[in-house]
Amino acid sequence: MYDELIIPSRVLLGPGPSEANARVLKAMTTPMLGYLDTAFVRVMDDTVALLRQVFGTENRLTFPVSGTGTAGMEAALVNVIEPGDAVVVGINGYFGGRIADIAARCGGDVTTVEAEWGTHIPADSIADAVTRTRPKLVALVHGETSTGILQPLDEAIAIAHEHDALFLADCVTSLGGQPVDVDARGIDIAYSCTQKCLAGPPGLSPITFSERAGDVIRRRKTPIQSFYLDVTLLEQYWFGTPDVQQRAYHHTVSMSLIYALREALRVVMEEGLAARYRRHELHARALLAGAKAIGLEPAAEEGYRAPMLTTLRIPEGIDDVTIRKGLLEEDGIEIGGGLGSFAGKAWRIGLMGESATERNVRLVLNALEKRLFVVRKAFG
Amino acid sequence: MYDELIIPSRVLLGPGPSEANARVLKAMTTPMLGYLDTAFVRVMDDTVALLRQVFGTENRLTFPVSGTGTAGMEAALVNVIEPGDAVVVGINGYFGGRIADIAARCGGDVTTVEAEWGTHIPADSIADAVTRTRPKLVALVHGETSTGILQPLDEAIAIAHEHDALFLADCVTSLGGQPVDVDARGIDIAYSCTQKCLAGPPGLSPITFSERAGDVIRRRKTPIQSFYLDVTLLEQYWFGTPDVQQRAYHHTVSMSLIYALREALRVVMEEGLAARYRRHELHARALLAGAKAIGLEPAAEEGYRAPMLTTLRIPEGIDDVTIRKGLLEEDGIEIGGGLGSFAGKAWRIGLMGESATERNVRLVLNALEKRLFVVRKAFG
Repeated sequence: MYDELIIPSRVLLGPGPSEANARVLKAMTTPMLGYLDTAFVRVMDDTVALLRQVFGTENRLTFPVSGTGTAGMEAALVNVIEPGDAVVVGINGYFGGRIADIAARCGGDVTTVEAEWGTHIPADSIADAVTRTRPKLVALVHGETSTGILQPLDEAIAIAHEHDALFLADCVTSLGGQPVDVDARGIDIAYSCTQKCLAGPPGLSPITFSERAGDVIRRRKTPIQSFYLDVTLLEQYWFGTPDVQQRAYHHTVSMSLIYALREALRVVMEEGLAARYRRHELHARALLAGAKAIGLEPAAEEGYRAPMLTTLRIPEGIDDVTIRKGLLEEDGIEIGGGLGSFAGKAWRIGLMGESATERNVRLVLNALEKRLFVVRKAFG
Repeated sequence: MYDELIIPSRVLLGPGPSEANARVLKAMTTPMLGYLDTAFVRVMDDTVALLRQVFGTENRLTFPVSGTGTAGMEAALVNVIEPGDAVVVGINGYFGGRIADIAARCGGDVTTVEAEWGTHIPADSIADAVTRTRPKLVALVHGETSTGILQPLDEAIAIAHEHDALFLADCVTSLGGQPVDVDARGIDIAYSCTQKCLAGPPGLSPITFSERAGDVIRRRKTPIQSFYLDVTLLEQYWFGTPDVQQRAYHHTVSMSLIYALREALRVVMEEGLAARYRRHELHARALLAGAKAIGLEPAAEEGYRAPMLTTLRIPEGIDDVTIRKGLLEEDGIEIGGGLGSFAGKAWRIGLMGESATERNVRLVLNALEKRLFVVRKAFG
């Protein structure tokens, strides 16, 4: 037999999940409803309308995929890419690499445009690859969770569109923390998650497809290799069939997670998008200033730093795991270690959604300073 | 702006979701934890151990897929099937058809063994197909949610194993309501959902793979076409890499849904599996007896009826939608309509998990009787 669920208190300042808003947790105690109950359909419609506001889009095909951010990534790619399609993927961190991996599993002929971890991808190198390979799709990560880079998108979008390619932006880390502006920028496909700047629980991946992307999907010659993520079927559940607007069962979505997402989006819109973006910027600046004051240098290129995720170089002589383990188990503070090229070399401090507060900035700086001081003293 | 989430009161007696246990809803108010926090790893380990008990297995590869039942179905098929592999799928309802659809999207060479909706699939016809096509995989739906048939598995499993095929059972509707007994029966792959007889919210799909199935996956010659559902990667997150037992990030699982699943499984084990199965059988018998008393005939073959889901023929002259709409919107009771061949012809009444109570049996019988009486009176 197993005891009641009791967990230790944690301040979540890693790469996600961030702290879920208390109203969002409460919303999950709402009882279940049938997946086509008219009362539930209203909840779905609200959620879609709120998602459109946060994405900055009027795209009809805007809804949460029933899976985490990686499911959204896979949904974006599997619907658009057919075997043999040329795809250009920017890689300057872990998640760009994941896009390339999934695109290849979809049969895509993938050309990668690589830049050093912690730097942005210059538009010139994207232009080179696009001109050379004439891809169907150009994919970039907006906020690279592994490095803390906020990738500029506008020039790359223009290049993609000049060459009749669709443009995909991974907004897993950015949505709700920085402007995504799907329609204003001309992004064709964007997806995100619920547990970072939206301050909900993980489990859903908001996604949006432009009309142009929808047309590409409907004109496919080969079947979509995933049934679970098949947008032509999901569309019938979320919006009804084009002819009769009759919604059709596809799978049983998670009522609890959709209740949670609706509430998380209500909280976001009550704060206001502009105010929320400013809050993320303010606390990132404070964190970075404080980090420099205790001798920690940023690991991400100046001018391209994502405010919701600050990466800091681990100083010489400091053991990554010792510090993080102490922070987690003694101070109750989670920060993230590095992935890939950044493993053991950088920390990732997330100030996302509810976690982006002055109190948390002070808390993590104080805890880090104390631990670094102890190590430095011990080693003279 | 959108108002606070307020939903009407419903008694959920459809094909799922059933009513979530109140303790399970409460567990979802637990704050988030990092996906590799040692405290969360303990929750994962508990959940896996409890899932093994409910599945009746010692399979190492037992965990919840981060998606609903259909994601589990796709995970089962996409990992095992390589392009050109022969697959035998039994179809006597909607979900058998879905398995065949997904198996084909995986590149499988699918042979279907069909039986009329509302009947079981005879072992002989499975034996014929297996002998003829020598498949890699034989797949049957244990509890067919579209028809209320509980498919016998033992002979089919023996046939599959005699011919060196893996045996897959879709236990979406059966798990927690009737014995699945993965190890005792020799099922190689089984998956389920959380929102039916386990009385949790939807969003996860418990799955289990035998050692033999795991070996087949590891010996694949072609890549697994899904990254999100790639068991060789999910294994590293749930159980650690085989060499160093170090858990590796794959995706951010939904803490809230895993808290919920752990609590739902605790509730199941506190009642006891045998008692829970008996409770489902008892209330199904009562429902069927009462249904007959008000002139409703079962739509599923005698001797093969799934206790958690009773299908009833809609009598001549009775309009399906009028009755269900009245039940839902006036009486607050959800029952299911028919899918596919059963559309407009049968109702599906689920007595699953928390919903399987004497009170609900009385309630739905009384409400149905009243509505049928009114219609019958109006038409003489």
